[in-house]
Amino acid sequence: MNLNFPAKSTSATTSLIRVIADRGAQIEGFIPLAMGNPAAEAIPTEVILEATREVLEGNPMLILQYGPAAGYAPLRQWIENYLVEKKGLCLDGHSLVMLGGSGQGLGLVPRTLCEEGDIVFTDEFTFPGGTNAIRGGGQVVKGIKMDEYGMIPEELDKAAKQGGGKYVYLIPNFHNPMGMTMPLERRKELYKVACENDLWIYEDDPYGDIRFAGTAIPSFKSFDVENRVILAGSFSKVLAAGIRVGYLFASDEFAKVLNVNKMSDGQAPILNQMIVYNSMAKLDYDEYIAGVSAVYGRKCKVMMDAMRKYCSDKVKFTDPEGGMFAWMELPETVDATAFHEACMNKGVGIVPSEAFATDPENNPGHGFRLNYTFASDEKIEEAIHIMGDLTREFCD
Amino acid sequence: MNLNFPAKSTSATTSLIRVIADRGAQIEGFIPLAMGNPAAEAIPTEVILEATREVLEGNPMLILQYGPAAGYAPLRQWIENYLVEKKGLCLDGHSLVMLGGSGQGLGLVPRTLCEEGDIVFTDEFTFPGGTNAIRGGGQVVKGIKMDEYGMIPEELDKAAKQGGGKYVYLIPNFHNPMGMTMPLERRKELYKVACENDLWIYEDDPYGDIRFAGTAIPSFKSFDVENRVILAGSFSKVLAAGIRVGYLFASDEFAKVLNVNKMSDGQAPILNQMIVYNSMAKLDYDEYIAGVSAVYGRKCKVMMDAMRKYCSDKVKFTDPEGGMFAWMELPETVDATAFHEACMNKGVGIVPSEAFATDPENNPGHGFRLNYTFASDEKIEEAIHIMGDLTREFCD
Repeated sequence: MNLNFPAKSTSATTSLIRVIADRGAQIEGFIPLAMGNPAAEAIPTEVILEATREVLEGNPMLILQYGPAAGYAPLRQWIENYLVEKKGLCLDGHSLVMLGGSGQGLGLVPRTLCEEGDIVFTDEFTFPGGTNAIRGGGQVVKGIKMDEYGMIPEELDKAAKQGGGKYVYLIPNFHNPMGMTMPLERRKELYKVACENDLWIYEDDPYGDIRFAGTAIPSFKSFDVENRVILAGSFSKVLAAGIRVGYLFASDEFAKVLNVNKMSDGQAPILNQMIVYNSMAKLDYDEYIAGVSAVYGRKCKVMMDAMRKYCSDKVKFTDPEGGMFAWMELPETVDATAFHEACMNKGVGIVPSEAFATDPENNPGHGFRLNYTFASDEKIEEAIHIMGDLTREFCD
Repeated sequence: MNLNFPAKSTSATTSLIRVIADRGAQIEGFIPLAMGNPAAEAIPTEVILEATREVLEGNPMLILQYGPAAGYAPLRQWIENYLVEKKGLCLDGHSLVMLGGSGQGLGLVPRTLCEEGDIVFTDEFTFPGGTNAIRGGGQVVKGIKMDEYGMIPEELDKAAKQGGGKYVYLIPNFHNPMGMTMPLERRKELYKVACENDLWIYEDDPYGDIRFAGTAIPSFKSFDVENRVILAGSFSKVLAAGIRVGYLFASDEFAKVLNVNKMSDGQAPILNQMIVYNSMAKLDYDEYIAGVSAVYGRKCKVMMDAMRKYCSDKVKFTDPEGGMFAWMELPETVDATAFHEACMNKGVGIVPSEAFATDPENNPGHGFRLNYTFASDEKIEEAIHIMGDLTREFCD
């Protein structure tokens, strides 16, 4: 039998993050700073339990049959209110598409917008779930050079002018993996380039509300006069990842086509949507999210203080204002692979930039992503102490 | 802005089944025989409630973080045992892929196996979720002529010889929409054609266990010596549709590639997988499924008895041995569209074959799918009485 799969189907690489986690599981006392799990203490377990009980005891038949394809109406309403009141967006000409976690959009959007061979522009270091999904759809990922504020508009423009581009994938708030937040001016510059080159923008914002420093910055969607922005939101980071409910918010035209394509993908189970709705209905969102952000902020501070205390002066790092990830860079002269090995051998799990690189062979980078939400404060301090000592060994 | 979407993204047609349901919702006393919802009385609500309570009270943190990508291990184990013990399959060289409902496979399989423009062979009347997903992936659906046993092997061979084909999509047990079950001999003939033309076979079997007459027929997978069969199973029909858990069972090579592609699609929430596992662990499967099948068998008999009693002699229908759907055909001389309108106007919701046709313009058919699981016994009898009178009006 001919077992040749199309190239696009085998283009995705094994997740290095998963490899690190698996390897760490074999190491006694391993401290995982690799995965992007939310902080256990920030998850309102009791609220979710009570919400679930209400669903089950309310109308069990409702959840045991197929739900409406559009999603659970009260949750849609809640999200729409949230987008208007908390995010300053306008619903006119726009529709919400409910997803089984915002990750479902990563595959749906390229399949909906692109032909095979179309180009999608991303940051040169970005979320590999995004790039794998694009490549899996038969599209080409073109990584664009970044600076401290994110993607460089001139570089996007140059690449777009070569043709074949369809959309730009961006994570403007608390970037994964690099932790930075894109200033408003940069957002507007990139938007202008997108308009000039007729590109869609996929604005992925799973962490946006988890801000513990600085001021919220308007989304691309908020100034999207040309309706070319697809905004993705999620309950995985603000509520609980295991429930898998997220959404896209985009123009009616886009939503209509996407909805038809979504039919072959399945939908968020109605049970899960009802649990999310009941949970959110029990919470004062502002107060709740302030509490979650405070937990993340405290843990981030533990990490950053330890970085400043233990790391070599030659290490550069971003100081996140929110989200789940910090980023550090070693001098280019340091062997980043050997450094990573040394960390792993001492039981500290961090992820090398290679795992996020759009062109890992030619541009693996020499940075590392560090998650500060999952490990305990003590373990974070301990891990950064070990890692910091190693930076002095490798850099000084 | 250039709002042109690729042709594949706009290829899917609006679901006629959904249109009928929506129209029916406006008609007082409307009897829905259109949708494929399971029978409410067959859903073990109390068992599922108890299973869910156990999950929530057991280890809530487990379900609120991301689950393992491979799925919930005890459920995997349960399904593997089931495939070996109940289905006579062999696990060697094969892997299970957990899905958010087996419907997720409808989009994943063409994306994984095919390039754009590749051909997928299906029955000339088949589940539109399947064909929409194929077209949405940029592949071409080629409907193959059927007889009373399902797809005709010579017709498949003829089409396959013209090249470009990648796989065959089949629903061998209790076909949707036509209700028939494919005999073993026909399965083997089709398998032979697939081998000779190097085609994969996608064996979709959501209803297989719900058999209330006749004897179970071995699956394609059971004699798949060349590992070219992808078997899809689901808990939506045997347990509850709203939970959204299903699976594919195929060769290790296929599963490996599919799993990587699935990453961009999302996964069945761990919560839902745990609910399914706990529910199944509480049930004696044989006894349970016999009970479900008895309910469906009783409701089917109500429908078929009424069909025989009220319909014109000129109406042909299949006598299902299981599943959820019956099928009837009017003589070719009858205006099927006018007949359907007359049914709708009298409050009976059935689905015309056009909704399932791979080539609705040239071959809309003159049949109708009737669901017997959702409406009450009394309503089924009432609906078929009304519809039967109309067949006499139109045919006699």
